[in-house]
Amino acid sequence: MTERTLINALAALENGPVKIQGWVDTVRDQKKVQFVVLRDETGACQLVNPRSEGREEISDTISNLAQGTMLTIEGDLKMDERVKLGGLEVKISSIKVESEANPETPIADDSSIDKRLDWRFLDLRTERNNLMFRAQTTMTHAMRNYWYDRDYIEIFTPKFMATASESNAELFKVEYFDGVAYLAQSPQFFKQMAQSAGFGKAFEIGPAFRADPSFTSRHATEFTSVDAEISWIESHADVMDMQEELIRTALGAVKERFGEDIKRVFDVEINLPENPFPRVPLLEAREIVESRGHKFERQDLDMDPEGEREIGRWALEEHGSEFVFLTDYPASIRPFYHMRHENDASLTKSYDLVWNGVEISTGAQREHRIEQLTAQIADKGMDAKALDFYLDFFRYGAPPHGGFGMGLSRMLMLMLHQPNLREVTYLFRGPNRLQP
Amino acid sequence: MTERTLINALAALENGPVKIQGWVDTVRDQKKVQFVVLRDETGACQLVNPRSEGREEISDTISNLAQGTMLTIEGDLKMDERVKLGGLEVKISSIKVESEANPETPIADDSSIDKRLDWRFLDLRTERNNLMFRAQTTMTHAMRNYWYDRDYIEIFTPKFMATASESNAELFKVEYFDGVAYLAQSPQFFKQMAQSAGFGKAFEIGPAFRADPSFTSRHATEFTSVDAEISWIESHADVMDMQEELIRTALGAVKERFGEDIKRVFDVEINLPENPFPRVPLLEAREIVESRGHKFERQDLDMDPEGEREIGRWALEEHGSEFVFLTDYPASIRPFYHMRHENDASLTKSYDLVWNGVEISTGAQREHRIEQLTAQIADKGMDAKALDFYLDFFRYGAPPHGGFGMGLSRMLMLMLHQPNLREVTYLFRGPNRLQP
Repeated sequence: MTERTLINALAALENGPVKIQGWVDTVRDQKKVQFVVLRDETGACQLVNPRSEGREEISDTISNLAQGTMLTIEGDLKMDERVKLGGLEVKISSIKVESEANPETPIADDSSIDKRLDWRFLDLRTERNNLMFRAQTTMTHAMRNYWYDRDYIEIFTPKFMATASESNAELFKVEYFDGVAYLAQSPQFFKQMAQSAGFGKAFEIGPAFRADPSFTSRHATEFTSVDAEISWIESHADVMDMQEELIRTALGAVKERFGEDIKRVFDVEINLPENPFPRVPLLEAREIVESRGHKFERQDLDMDPEGEREIGRWALEEHGSEFVFLTDYPASIRPFYHMRHENDASLTKSYDLVWNGVEISTGAQREHRIEQLTAQIADKGMDAKALDFYLDFFRYGAPPHGGFGMGLSRMLMLMLHQPNLREVTYLFRGPNRLQP
Repeated sequence: MTERTLINALAALENGPVKIQGWVDTVRDQKKVQFVVLRDETGACQLVNPRSEGREEISDTISNLAQGTMLTIEGDLKMDERVKLGGLEVKISSIKVESEANPETPIADDSSIDKRLDWRFLDLRTERNNLMFRAQTTMTHAMRNYWYDRDYIEIFTPKFMATASESNAELFKVEYFDGVAYLAQSPQFFKQMAQSAGFGKAFEIGPAFRADPSFTSRHATEFTSVDAEISWIESHADVMDMQEELIRTALGAVKERFGEDIKRVFDVEINLPENPFPRVPLLEAREIVESRGHKFERQDLDMDPEGEREIGRWALEEHGSEFVFLTDYPASIRPFYHMRHENDASLTKSYDLVWNGVEISTGAQREHRIEQLTAQIADKGMDAKALDFYLDFFRYGAPPHGGFGMGLSRMLMLMLHQPNLREVTYLFRGPNRLQP
């Protein structure tokens, strides 16, 4: 039997017999001739069937085709400039229905996002969504290449924990035999453990879980976390250096491979950051934002979503950068394990990364000195006993270290200028969404 | 300040000033001279401190060093053939204690595996364990490269599910807001969904969860699953072809990068499979094993662990292969979604892969035709209603497809001839192990 040819490989062939496989996109069933647009994972092409004598069986099959039906086609490839779709068509010599689609397609182009998520596997068949996940594949691959080339060790940290990781809030509880376990909200403790274990540099791209009951465009109960952690840093600036280079590498790879397709399908230009990402202390950033007219309503010193958007606009206008690091957050709004400044214990050696006005990542140098760490736990009013297993990591020698965690879907969302996480997650999970 | 040099990069330098950072392995505190072996993520080297005038502060610091203490050292590198450890040493000019280790090291070389797991971060500091996870990193990287080069899409499937995936047994239950969710036992349903979504070829390396109360050397409640799924196959033979090539690629990469180190540290030769992996129908394999003296005690037609070991020995003796595919399992011992043979519905188009006498993977062509799938669910006495969201994937066209799932830690265990999963998992999780 002829080997299958992918549709995007047809153009490079000579006229002649081919076998292609995919699903029915559209059918034009005319009196003298039938046309089918067939789509596969690489593209779409036109099939043609003249309704001539001896071809009745093929014609009948085509007349009954529903959108989505999976077909194996053998036929004759013919280059033809008049065919709008790729300048070629395949004249069917045999057609095999591999699996029939229900003719009532449950979603349309204008269906709501919630309806489309109910039928996500159909929604994913579009060129647009296919391209989205190919771009994500290139992005993760480029990031792992970056780390691999620099001798990072890949870790697969456990998702079951005996106690809370960073806080007791928003924690999922699992029935674990006769006891309970909790789902990791991040690999934080375990990627730090890799530093005490002498791994030097470690990374992980894997799931994390937050029992967050909110319904914003930026939250999910389960998300893919991109994490890296490195030893022997001088400060959080070393972590920012690494993350900045990582993002440049990832965006460069996506632009090279899919930049033109993304321009055509999403009307989005992938901009390779040319300038260094500006690094602005958070308190200065708040002043900048206020001077541009924004009023903070929250009581603490953190940014709010509109503040992030405003500092994003500022970074673009003043520094020509879609990215901006907000640094040196007050200790009051950072977790206990962020290292504090030697000369001002009210500030931490930490940062958030904002891309196109949305926070995508938090990083910091971690406190590796057991006395300071214990003091910071007390300072936060946390229970040192529950964290004792974690404190052990610092009782037998721990190097200075730091790292970041970054939301993969947030990256994809911002790269492709998408309005929310639901659009860019393979299968979104939220408080009231567990299926499909 | 001088840049840090990794210890394995010292040998390529000229004599002169260097800065190195790592932890104390051993101290020899003699009258006239002190020696410290310092280890970092790349190796170990000898530090020397002559107890001469003006160096008392350094000497005192060294006298108080505990194993594990993290140090930043500046000193003079000198090549010296007489030094057994790498033919070089560093004469200390400054020593900075970054974090002190508790002098009572809780584990020793002869500690039990359970005790070592309590202190996994110390256990991981050994050259042996460091090498293990570097080898795993190369293995996963090579597999992803294989897929990436062939245009697979990486998927991050959800770990939360509304219903059971493959069976109701061994399922972890999560308190999910006002309801419940279950943790995915495998990405099975969702990697199949990628085929209905027209992704063509998809892969994932991620966690899976089984509430398995057993304590064997081969089971864990949480494990890293290596999964691939491809469309438009002719039969399960296509899946085996891909998996065989994938494993060859992965082992080749590990051998090239770490083959010599693995030989030295583990006394294990990484054998690149030269011959095709033999493919033996399960029922024949049982006969072979019985003819070699093994008696099956279980009532069903499956293999047992000793049977696997025996067929492993047979494959090595008769085919010079560490690997053997056992194919065409009876439908009675396979999940409902495995496709059955056209000419014998009692057999499935499935396989297990056995490496060095241990099963590491299960693969199959999946049933993609809705009528057959529904019939097979009924045949197994399962509830089609709970599977309705999954059946939807096959109601709007689904291509013929198949794939496999493989345990990452099992691969590492068998590659390095290790006795159990606990040794080769970054942080093992079992019924009574949730910490650290």
